[in-house]
Amino acid sequence: MQGLMQDWPLLVGKVFDHANTAHGEQEIVTRTVEGPIHRYTYRDAYVRSKKVAQALLKLGVKEGDRIGTLAWNTYRHLESWYGITGVGAVYHTLNPRLFAEQLVYIITHAEDKFIFVDLTFVPILEGIQDQLGCVEGYVILTDEASMPATSLKNAICYEGLISDHDGDFEWAAVDEKAACGLCYTSGTTGNPKGVLYSHRSNVLHTLAANGADAMGMRAADSVLPVVPMFHANAWTIAFSAPAAGSKLVMPGANMDGESIYELLENEQVTFSAAVPTVWLMLLSYLEDNDKTLSSLRRVAIGGSACPQMMIEKFQKNYGVDVVHAWGMTEMSPIGTLCTFKPGMEKWPAEQQIQQKLKQGRAIFTVEMKITDDDGKELPHDGKAFGHLLVRGPAIVNGYFKGEGGDPLDTDSWFDTGDVATIDELGYMQITDRSKDVIKSGGEWISSIDLENVAVGHPDVAEAAVIGVAHPKWDERPLLIVVKREGSEVTKDEILSYMTDKIAKWWMPDDVVFVDEIPHTATGKIQKMALREQFSSYELPTASQAAE
Amino acid sequence: MQGLMQDWPLLVGKVFDHANTAHGEQEIVTRTVEGPIHRYTYRDAYVRSKKVAQALLKLGVKEGDRIGTLAWNTYRHLESWYGITGVGAVYHTLNPRLFAEQLVYIITHAEDKFIFVDLTFVPILEGIQDQLGCVEGYVILTDEASMPATSLKNAICYEGLISDHDGDFEWAAVDEKAACGLCYTSGTTGNPKGVLYSHRSNVLHTLAANGADAMGMRAADSVLPVVPMFHANAWTIAFSAPAAGSKLVMPGANMDGESIYELLENEQVTFSAAVPTVWLMLLSYLEDNDKTLSSLRRVAIGGSACPQMMIEKFQKNYGVDVVHAWGMTEMSPIGTLCTFKPGMEKWPAEQQIQQKLKQGRAIFTVEMKITDDDGKELPHDGKAFGHLLVRGPAIVNGYFKGEGGDPLDTDSWFDTGDVATIDELGYMQITDRSKDVIKSGGEWISSIDLENVAVGHPDVAEAAVIGVAHPKWDERPLLIVVKREGSEVTKDEILSYMTDKIAKWWMPDDVVFVDEIPHTATGKIQKMALREQFSSYELPTASQAAE
Repeated sequence: MQGLMQDWPLLVGKVFDHANTAHGEQEIVTRTVEGPIHRYTYRDAYVRSKKVAQALLKLGVKEGDRIGTLAWNTYRHLESWYGITGVGAVYHTLNPRLFAEQLVYIITHAEDKFIFVDLTFVPILEGIQDQLGCVEGYVILTDEASMPATSLKNAICYEGLISDHDGDFEWAAVDEKAACGLCYTSGTTGNPKGVLYSHRSNVLHTLAANGADAMGMRAADSVLPVVPMFHANAWTIAFSAPAAGSKLVMPGANMDGESIYELLENEQVTFSAAVPTVWLMLLSYLEDNDKTLSSLRRVAIGGSACPQMMIEKFQKNYGVDVVHAWGMTEMSPIGTLCTFKPGMEKWPAEQQIQQKLKQGRAIFTVEMKITDDDGKELPHDGKAFGHLLVRGPAIVNGYFKGEGGDPLDTDSWFDTGDVATIDELGYMQITDRSKDVIKSGGEWISSIDLENVAVGHPDVAEAAVIGVAHPKWDERPLLIVVKREGSEVTKDEILSYMTDKIAKWWMPDDVVFVDEIPHTATGKIQKMALREQFSSYELPTASQAAE
Repeated sequence: MQGLMQDWPLLVGKVFDHANTAHGEQEIVTRTVEGPIHRYTYRDAYVRSKKVAQALLKLGVKEGDRIGTLAWNTYRHLESWYGITGVGAVYHTLNPRLFAEQLVYIITHAEDKFIFVDLTFVPILEGIQDQLGCVEGYVILTDEASMPATSLKNAICYEGLISDHDGDFEWAAVDEKAACGLCYTSGTTGNPKGVLYSHRSNVLHTLAANGADAMGMRAADSVLPVVPMFHANAWTIAFSAPAAGSKLVMPGANMDGESIYELLENEQVTFSAAVPTVWLMLLSYLEDNDKTLSSLRRVAIGGSACPQMMIEKFQKNYGVDVVHAWGMTEMSPIGTLCTFKPGMEKWPAEQQIQQKLKQGRAIFTVEMKITDDDGKELPHDGKAFGHLLVRGPAIVNGYFKGEGGDPLDTDSWFDTGDVATIDELGYMQITDRSKDVIKSGGEWISSIDLENVAVGHPDVAEAAVIGVAHPKWDERPLLIVVKREGSEVTKDEILSYMTDKIAKWWMPDDVVFVDEIPHTATGKIQKMALREQFSSYELPTASQAAE
C-alpha cells in the first residue's frame, strides 16, 4: 500500500525556487574576476539562471549533456549551475589546478559540449582546445566590455548570451534520479574517475547539510564559501545556502589572507568553509596586521586534517568556533562534522581540542563503519582502526562510464580508502589512507601519525612515511625527511625526538633525507611515487632479521 | 541519463538506525503512565523496537496493515512506532479526546488490526470494543505487574509480548513511498478523513524539520515534545529528535504546569513544543510559584495562534525564545516557522513581537502561495489576504480510501482552508478559515480579527463572528458574545469599543448575546453550528437596505 503524499520530485531547481520565493530579497555578493564587488539578490539570480537555461536550449543543449565549468566562486558560476541543471543537463566542474593532460582527459572523457570559463582560465583552454574535439563552444563568464582577445573557437560572451532571453522558463521536469552534476576525483592511481551526482542526491545532501548540527546555515547567516565550487560541490554551499536563504559571499579569484579578510569584515560573514591552507593564510594575515574578526562565528575546515594550532588560534584569539569536517567527492561530499554532544561544552579545554581534532560524527543519511581486512566490523573504542566504509543516498554507486568497475561491496558499502578509528560517542578520526598504512606483523601502523610527529621536530620541513618490505614483519616504516634549510639534523636526533611520542613498535626502522618530496597537482604527497623510488630500499633491520 | 548514486530508500527505520549507531548513548526519559520516571538510551529503544517488530510478525501483522495507537508520549509509544513501521505496517494514531462515535468511525474505517493502548485509555476502548469488529487484539502498554483487570477481548501485555523476542531483526525493505503512518483530521464538516504518510514523506519532513532555521534540534539539545504523538506526528519530534541525536523527554499523561515544569528543570530541557493552552498552564504555574527556567532556551508554539502576551512573557520574564509555527495534519505537519531573517534581531522590541505573531516563513520543501477566489496569485505585501495553498513532498495528495475526492487543484496545489497574508519578506499570517471569512460586497472580512478585537473588551468572555445573509452586501458580520458572569454590557458599548480598532466597513452589523458558544471535541468554535443556528437571522441593516 502506497502512502498518499504528493509527488514532488527532489530537483535542484526546487532549491532555487525556494530561494526566490522565500528569500528573494537576500543578497549575493561577489568579488568579480574583473575586479569590482558585484551585488544582487536571489530574485535577480533566479531570473538570470532561467535565462541561462533558455540560452542553453537555444545552443542545442539536451537533457543529459555535460557542460563543463572552469570557474571561481562567483554569481555567474552559481547561475550557470542552476541554468544547466534546469534544462536537465549536467554541470561538470573542472579543477584549474589539474595538469593540462588531466584536463584533456577529463573533458574528453565527459564529452563536455560547452565549457563555461572564467577570464583567468581562458589561456588554459586555449592551450588544449585542439585536443577537445567534443567541445562546441566556450562561454566566457564576463560581459562584452571585458571580453578578451582569444584564440578559442566559438568563444561566446556570457552576458551577451543570456541578454537575448526573458527568464520566462519552467525547469525541465526530469526524474529525480537523473544526472545533475559531475566531478572527477584525481586518484593517485589510474585515470581520474567521474562521480555523477543526481538531482535527488544533491537535494537530500542539501537537506542533511542544513541540519542544525551539520553545516547549520540560517537565513540570518552571511556565508562565505572559500572552498571552490569545483572542489566537491563547494561542500554543498551552492545549494544549502540558497535553501536556507543565507546571504552568499563569493570570493572570486582572490584567496589570499587580505582579500578573504576584507570580505569577512565588509560583508559581516558569520560562517565560512575552506581547506586548512586558506585558513593558514588568513591567520597569518590577521597576526601580521594585528586584526580581529568582528562577525565570524564559525568555520568549517576539511579537505585535509585540521592542525591543532589552527583550532586553538581561531577559538582563543578570535572567538571563532572550528568545526572539523570530513568527506569526499564520492560522498557529495560531507560525511562527518565535529559538533559537540551534550556535556562536551563543559569538558576541559584540552580535552575539547583533542575531540575537535577528530573529523566528527556521521550526519543523518550517512552510515559509517570500520572493518578489518576480512570485513569484520571493528569496535567503536577510539583505538581500533580499520577500513572506513560508508553508505547513503548521496554516496557513489559507480563511476561515470563504469570506470574502475563496481566500487561497492556485496552489502552496498563504499570503501573510502581511508583508515580510521570511531570512538564510543561515534566520533571518527582518520588515521591513514588504506594504501599508505604500514602492515607490520599483522598490525597496522599509521603513516600519517608518524608524519605528524616527525614534522613536530623543528628541523623537519616535510616528512613522509612509507612501508618498505621486511623479511620478518612484511613491512616496516621508513621515514623520508626534507630538512629545513641550513639544518644539520641527524637520523638519531629525529628518532630520539619521536621516542616518547609513539608506541615503540611504530618507530621507523630508518630515516632518509631528500631534497624534495613529490606532490600531486592538488598538493598531496605522492606516496606511490615514493614507494616506487624506495621499492628496493633495504632497511638496516632487514639484514639483521635475515641474519 | 541517471546519476550514479546509491539506492538508499528513505525509510523511517533509517532514522532509528542512525540514532542507534551515532547516538546510542543518548537518553530517552519518560514520565510513565504508571508513575515513576523511566530512563534508558536510544540503543535500548532500538533493540526493543526490533522486538516489537518481531512480535507483530508473530501476531500475523503484514505489510500495509494498520495498527492503532491510543497513547501518550512515552518510550513504549515511540518503540511501537518504529516496530510497526519496521515490518512495513502503518501506525495509526488515535486522538483520545475524540467522541466515542468518532473513534469507532475512525478505527473501523482504518480497519485497525491491533490497537496499542495506554492504561489511561483502556476504559474508552472497553466501551466501544463491540463496535470494533476489525480489531484482533489490544496491546496494553505496560508490564505484567501493572496489567489491569479488563473486559477487552484478547488483551495483551506489551512487556510480555516483546519479552519473547531477541531483537535480531532487519527492518522490512519496503518501497520508500509505502504507507507508514495514518492520522485522521477531525473536520468540522463530514466524516474525519485519513492522511496517509509514506516513509519518504516522513523522512524528508524530518530532514526539513531539523534545518537550523526550522525546529533546529541538535545532539546537545534536551527536547520535550509536549505536543502529543497523536497530534500530527508530534510535529516530527518522534523522528527528528532521534535523527539529530537529541535527548528525548517524554511527558506521559501529565500536562499540568507543575508536571511540565518538573521535567523542564530536572531534565534540563532546552527545546520544547506545544499548543498555547499547555504554555498558558505552565506560565501561570511559574507565576503563581515564583519559579524561573534554568535551561529552556526555545519553544515552538502552534496548533492555534500564539497570543502576544505569551511571546512577551516567555521572552521578557524567562529569557525563552518563542518560535511561532504553523502546519496541519495534511502537511506532516510543519509548514512555516517564525525564525528571524538578518537584521530583525536589531528591530525595536515591539516590531519584533509583531513579526513573531506571524506564523512565519515556509521551510524548504514547502511551497506556499495565496490566491483570490479565481485562483489569481495575490501579492506578498502583508495586506492582501487570500486562500493559502501549499505544495510539497510531505503534503497530502488524497485521503485514505479516496474520502473527499481529489483535494488538489490542476497544478497540484492543496488548499489549506486557511486565509492568510504573506509579507514582503515571505512571512505568512493566518487571518481566517476560508469558510469563516465574511464576503461583503466582494471584499473579505476576517472573522478571527473581529473576534480578537471583541474579546479585548473586559466584559466579553468569548466571541464568535459569522457571516449572515444581506440583500445588498451578500454577507455582513454578526458578532455573537458570551458575557462575563455578572456583566450587563450592551451592544452599543461593545461596538463603540471596537470603533477605532478596525476598518469602518468591518464593523459587525449586529451583536447577539448567548449563554454558550458550541465547541468541537478538540476545543475549536463550531462556526458551522452557529451558522445553522443563525441561518434565518435578520440583520437590522438588512431591512434598511431592503427599504
